Amino acid sequence: MVFVNAGTLGVEPGRRDELVEILVARNDALTEIGCRIYEVGVTDDEPGTVYVVEVWDDAAAHRASLELPEVQAAIAAARPMLSGEFGGFRFTSAGSPLRP
Amino acid sequence: MVFVNAGTLGVEPGRRDELVEILVARNDALTEIGCRIYEVGVTDDEPGTVYVVEVWDDAAAHRASLELPEVQAAIAAARPMLSGEFGGFRFTSAGSPLRP
Repeated sequence: MVFVNAGTLGVEPGRRDELVEILVARNDALTEIGCRIYEVGVTDDEPGTVYVVEVWDDAAAHRASLELPEVQAAIAAARPMLSGEFGGFRFTSAGSPLRP
Repeated sequence: MVFVNAGTLGVEPGRRDELVEILVARNDALTEIGCRIYEVGVTDDEPGTVYVVEVWDDAAAHRASLELPEVQAAIAAARPMLSGEFGGFRFTSAGSPLRP
């Protein structure tokens, strides 16, 4: 079942764009492992936050992605930029008007 | 540019599943108007909340969808089930590791 992760990442002052650059770096392994959507964004009214919305084939695909070398490298590179504040929500989809 | 809406809907006690049913009702007009992803979900630890994550071709497609008769009918049907609490976040995507 489709798994959705809608997260907010707190960012240290001045490092937001650097973090975005890491998160949007092309990584075809994500698609291969079951990532359908991975969007990264920022807003003017929350300058200390980066938003990430991911949609996966299922929760197992999401978990497996965290073991990928490219993802582990990105997490390590991003860690010093993070303020430690995390938010958002996750769920297994109950359905979609776009599917039977 | 891709537009993302990750929302939480507060639901009146006992009406959560009814609301999910309305939100997942098949509606091909959404895809035609630019909806890429529309996932609806619930979690055990937040029984009074329905989660909706939508990804659109752009913000204009999302706005236009609110004018669709099926969407207006769904909003009208859902209104009595809503507690009035809304949360989540929206953003225009800064990029994705799945795209160049």
